[in-house]
Order: sequence, then C-alpha cells, then structure tokens
Amino acid sequence: SPRPTNRGNRGMRLEDDINDSISYYRNRKTAVIHKKPTPVQIVNVDYPARSRAKITEAYFRQASTTDYNGIYRGYHLDFEAKETRQKQSFPFKNFHDHQLNHLAAISDQGGCAFLILQFVESEEIFVIKADVFLQLKEESTRKSLQKSVIAAHSVSIKRTYTPPIDFLPAVDQLFF
Amino acid sequence: SPRPTNRGNRGMRLEDDINDSISYYRNRKTAVIHKKPTPVQIVNVDYPARSRAKITEAYFRQASTTDYNGIYRGYHLDFEAKETRQKQSFPFKNFHDHQLNHLAAISDQGGCAFLILQFVESEEIFVIKADVFLQLKEESTRKSLQKSVIAAHSVSIKRTYTPPIDFLPAVDQLFF
Ligand SMILES: [Mg+2]
Ligand SMILES: [Mg+2]
Repeated sequence: SPRPTNRGNRGMRLEDDINDSISYYRNRKTAVIHKKPTPVQIVNVDYPARSRAKITEAYFRQASTTDYNGIYRGYHLDFEAKETRQKQSFPFKNFHDHQLNHLAAISDQGGCAFLILQFVESEEIFVIKADVFLQLKEESTRKSLQKSVIAAHSVSIKRTYTPPIDFLPAVDQLFF
Repeated sequence: SPRPTNRGNRGMRLEDDINDSISYYRNRKTAVIHKKPTPVQIVNVDYPARSRAKITEAYFRQASTTDYNGIYRGYHLDFEAKETRQKQSFPFKNFHDHQLNHLAAISDQGGCAFLILQFVESEEIFVIKADVFLQLKEESTRKSLQKSVIAAHSVSIKRTYTPPIDFLPAVDQLFF
C-alpha cells in the first residue's frame, strides 16, 4: 500500500477517499458524480432574528437509493461503497435491500451499476458490477461472499494519491 | 386546465406533482428518477435510550446540484423545476448559479439537462433544454425571460392525472 494507514477512524476512510476522488473527477471534467445528502425528516425549525435558520428537531430517514450517482462518458453511473473488517469474506448484511433493489433497477435501465468493496485490513479494493454481485449473492448458501470469489469476478484497484481511489478505469474495463 | 387548482399552498404544487410523476415512472419501470434530499449540516444528535436518534441542531446547507436526476432509456437525466407567479416572464433570479453550472456540466458530459418551468397563474408548463435556456439568458438584456420566448424554444406540456406532469414525452422530443 502506497499510503500510511494510521488514521484514527478508518471506518470513514473509504467514503472520504471516494468523495475526494469524485471531486477530482469533477474538477478535471472527467465525470460529474456527487454523493447524495443524508435524508433527514425535518420536524422543527427556529428562525432566530438576525441569524440563520436552525433545525431543532429532525430524524434520519431511510434512504431509497445508493449514496453516489452521476454521469461519465455520457453514461449513467450509480454505485455504493462498502467496507468490512472481515478478512476473508464480505458479509451480505452490509448491503441494504433498498440499495440492491435500486442498483438492479438502474442496471435494468441500461445504467452502469456497481459496488466498490474494501477489505479494510488488507486494504484491498474491488469494483464489481451490481448484476454480477446480485447473481453471486443469489447463488450463495453462505452469509457472506468469499474474497476469492469477489476477486475472480471484479476489477481490483490500488490506492493512489490523486485521486485516492481511481475507480473510473475499472468502470471502463467492466462496462465498455 | 383539467384539474382543480384550489389548493392552499400552490407554491409547492409543481414539486409535489413532479414527485408523484417520478414515483409513477419508477413503478412502471419507465425511468428511475429520484429527488435529492435537502442537504443538511448536522451539528448535534441525541441518542435517547430505547428511542431513535434525534437531531437537535442542524443547518441547511447550500446544494451543489439540481433537485432531480436519474436514468431514462439508458440516458442520464438531470433537471430542476421552477415556478413563478409572474404572468409574462420568468425571473432569472429564480435560478441559482450552482444549479445552472451543474446543468451545464451535465450537458457537457452528454447528459440530458433541462428545466421544467411553470407559470403558476396560467398553469402553463414548459420543458426547455438547459443549453438553450443558458444561451437565451446569456443573450438577454433583461432580468427575466419572456414567456413568448420560452414558448418558442421549449415543449409545452399539459397537466394530466397519472402522472400529473408527464414530462418524459417532452424529453423524447427535445433530446431524441
Ligand atoms: Mg454507503
Ligand atoms: Mg427546486
């Protein structure tokens, strides 16, 4: 791995690095991809005089899509990023039904739907088509997908610096 | 107009009707379009025992995109919906820079970027390509775009029942 990993909160690292990467792609005009805001149900807002509106009561809502979508080379992209601390397999429980159903719907419409999966301990990152993942999940009798199976059905990517997770070449390889 | 208009809050009607329309399109598998959640900066969350997390301090953040995007016939769609109570022209101040810049970026990537504009008083609705709108704005010496100019450069749509605002045929006409 080309980069030190002694961060405090490693749990957020994949998402942070993907956010940096899509920002890099937007600046370079390579692709226009955004992370969706966290859905929040707003119940009460105060409007103090001479000060900005303050939300004083709100609740997290269940998302109905994945976290990321956008456009690249004219194609619609949609993906979810997930990481696990498991060493040999990726637990299916990390994936919500609404995320997998949404990816299937995007794929049915002709979009590029995929997952970016990271094994935190080994720093291995895989990009896998949503269709392929769903098929493997369907066929599996386990509660998780073996890393060796993921590796055989995906494109492996290495961390770099700019962007930290350069996943578009993997998209090229998988879809074009 | 085929539908009664005596609602309390007409200001929200266009957005509500578009939300119903994209939900109809999703159910029919015609297109997968979602409204993005309102971006909120969360400052404080309480986690009461035996009860769901409650956000007790948060602020509205400026969005960096439009409200709607998705996929239709394999194409990336991105749009913003706006309404005005002005009778003869649509004020440019209703459009934020971040929205117009985002639409231009989507269009540059080969996506279908457009606006749905409603004149509330006459219930007229127009679908206009973002490129065309931006060009007309650029060329204009006024603070608003005349309705007659919009009508000459867009596709006019009528309200119906299911879906209330059937805008995809206008997208076909404008982009395909
Ligand atoms: Mg996620
Ligand atoms: Mg809006």
